[in-house]
Amino acid sequence: PKVVKQKVFDICRLTKDVAQDDPRKVIHSLKVGLSISMVSLFYYYQPLYENFGLSAMWAVITVVVVLDYTVGATLGQGLNWTIGTFGAAALGLGTHHLASLSGATAEPILIGAFVFMIAAIASFIRFFPTMKARYDYGMIIFILTFSFISVSGFRDDEVMEMVHKRLSTTVIGGSACVVISLFVCPVWAGEEFHYSTANKLEILGDFLEAFVREYFKISKGESEDNKGDSKDILLLEDYKKVLNSKSIDDSLVNFARWEPGHGKFKFRHPWYLYLQIGVFSRQCAYRMETLNAHLSSDTQGFQEISCTIQELCLEMSLESSKALKELGTSIKTMTRPSSSNRHVANAKVTAKCLKSLLQSLSWKETCLLSLISVVAVASLLIDIVEFIGKIADSVNDLATL
Amino acid sequence: PKVVKQKVFDICRLTKDVAQDDPRKVIHSLKVGLSISMVSLFYYYQPLYENFGLSAMWAVITVVVVLDYTVGATLGQGLNWTIGTFGAAALGLGTHHLASLSGATAEPILIGAFVFMIAAIASFIRFFPTMKARYDYGMIIFILTFSFISVSGFRDDEVMEMVHKRLSTTVIGGSACVVISLFVCPVWAGEEFHYSTANKLEILGDFLEAFVREYFKISKGESEDNKGDSKDILLLEDYKKVLNSKSIDDSLVNFARWEPGHGKFKFRHPWYLYLQIGVFSRQCAYRMETLNAHLSSDTQGFQEISCTIQELCLEMSLESSKALKELGTSIKTMTRPSSSNRHVANAKVTAKCLKSLLQSLSWKETCLLSLISVVAVASLLIDIVEFIGKIADSVNDLATL
Repeated sequence: PKVVKQKVFDICRLTKDVAQDDPRKVIHSLKVGLSISMVSLFYYYQPLYENFGLSAMWAVITVVVVLDYTVGATLGQGLNWTIGTFGAAALGLGTHHLASLSGATAEPILIGAFVFMIAAIASFIRFFPTMKARYDYGMIIFILTFSFISVSGFRDDEVMEMVHKRLSTTVIGGSACVVISLFVCPVWAGEEFHYSTANKLEILGDFLEAFVREYFKISKGESEDNKGDSKDILLLEDYKKVLNSKSIDDSLVNFARWEPGHGKFKFRHPWYLYLQIGVFSRQCAYRMETLNAHLSSDTQGFQEISCTIQELCLEMSLESSKALKELGTSIKTMTRPSSSNRHVANAKVTAKCLKSLLQSLSWKETCLLSLISVVAVASLLIDIVEFIGKIADSVNDLATL
Repeated sequence: PKVVKQKVFDICRLTKDVAQDDPRKVIHSLKVGLSISMVSLFYYYQPLYENFGLSAMWAVITVVVVLDYTVGATLGQGLNWTIGTFGAAALGLGTHHLASLSGATAEPILIGAFVFMIAAIASFIRFFPTMKARYDYGMIIFILTFSFISVSGFRDDEVMEMVHKRLSTTVIGGSACVVISLFVCPVWAGEEFHYSTANKLEILGDFLEAFVREYFKISKGESEDNKGDSKDILLLEDYKKVLNSKSIDDSLVNFARWEPGHGKFKFRHPWYLYLQIGVFSRQCAYRMETLNAHLSSDTQGFQEISCTIQELCLEMSLESSKALKELGTSIKTMTRPSSSNRHVANAKVTAKCLKSLLQSLSWKETCLLSLISVVAVASLLIDIVEFIGKIADSVNDLATL
């Protein structure tokens, strides 16, 4: 009835949202459909079927599991899958040979013992942090293929042929994935990482601009222009995406490392610099989280003191904001940042002025009610300027490499 | 030669570290080995083999993929695997029936079209955020099984029998996983989450205690006792684990939701409260990150002013620290926090005193050089007290539920 209708409507809207948000996701889905249909051809055509028989299904499995959204992920999983399969095949054949030497009664016991041992060891290796990050997938495939081959070997006399078929179908499936993911509308993890890093800097820049506008406007009680109000509130929320960006960054850089050179990126693009920029961006975001709390705190509403500090805070923040946006753009266009160094320098000079102003002010003349908030905000902004300096250094390094 | 020896030695040490760090990981590895060997029995015993034949391998695949470290993960993946397999089997049989009605020439084309469509749609659904979080696995299995069945159906006349075998082996593999993971030394995701949450609070408490000791000791120039020095530095690093705990929390809570009641936990344990505590803990950690920067900043070294503020800061921090540790213990033991409310109240009162002290101080008498740092630190500590209050509320809620 009505509920069902609403549900269907919701799903349709969600579909539209996801598709509009990133049309490449639709393309990826079509790519998956295409690859699976392509590989299924093995089954449809008589001559191919006679060669591979039931093993052809392994090609389908390979495609479903290996083909991922980004090129890097596909290559990484493909490599893992290949290494795992070949390693396990070799070991499985060895086990089979060893066990078959030992006579009919001992054979199943020996194979069982081997399977238990190898599976346990491989599962344990999966816990190693370095293996977990990059080769987790390969280990699963290794366990799978190994138990498959050594156990089937017990029944099947044509082990060699089975292994041969298994390996060739895997290679066929894997190559289909790699070809489709590389040549049909590729989505590069490196590019994603590149733009998400640039985007982070712009988000931070927007926040700083919106923050000082909001903070000083409310406190002064005079709003210059109200038009940007609701937009500002949006900008003030965006930094939260940066706060928890670490896990996304880590997985993207993991994928990006598998990718060959493409477009503006070389094979060994200095991704570690992006990671560095990510770390500093998060440091800024942590401070922004604290700043944000000051917006809603009731220690606001300060008086004369603000006038003196406000100028400097405003200038510092706006310069920082400009610097961040400039740095973001310069990452995007992969050019040397032109004016951002000047902005950073300006911000740093202003920070120094602000510091000495805070120190030299004769506090007694001012109303002290809101002193804590103002000083805390100023101190956080000064901190942020420092990290922006570090970000600028990293971006400069990136441009010169 | 020597390098190889070193490598081997490194690996041995790493193995020992991982095993010592959490012996349950060793047990888990043995469990995996055991399950795979158990399922392989299908192959060794003639009567079982005659029933299932090659399909028995699906049981092995199921075990390798479904059996995970925690019970919740295993149950979640098992459920996904089951739903995906059965759904795909039903749809695959339907497709096969529909296609076989259409005559010999149209059949492969129709099947190809169906496979393309279903695979594309299922891949697209994987991008939906809600699906991604909980059912990603099931979708992969769905695509896999569907293409498997509909494509094999084209060649194999005994589709029904194949599907039947496929389903029963899957159920056998899945049940073996569930039984082993539930009854052989189970590792509960919920329990992990529970203790990691309590642990986070203790880490934060330790930080606060170490921080005030470090900050005021250095600045005063008189170190009461040097014994805790290097230990303090360790405590000052630990909060970084809390900073990026969001992704771990999210995955643990996802697993925990699948788990049946166990030990002290009911089936519908209020995990959302743990998530809330996690959010507030991270808020504290963000501020600690900023505090930490003040430790190394050169604006330190303040004079008379510190004496007046120091008392209050110290008391506030120590009370907060006690409250946090108490809250952590009370989560661990699942008892109502006894004295923590008092500690929180004390900290809040002290925070209020500190605020008014900062406001009423006649700043002119003091040396202003380090004013910014002190006020900023005090302000951050006051912020933290507020969040500790929120954490205490959540813990109280947890205890009363």
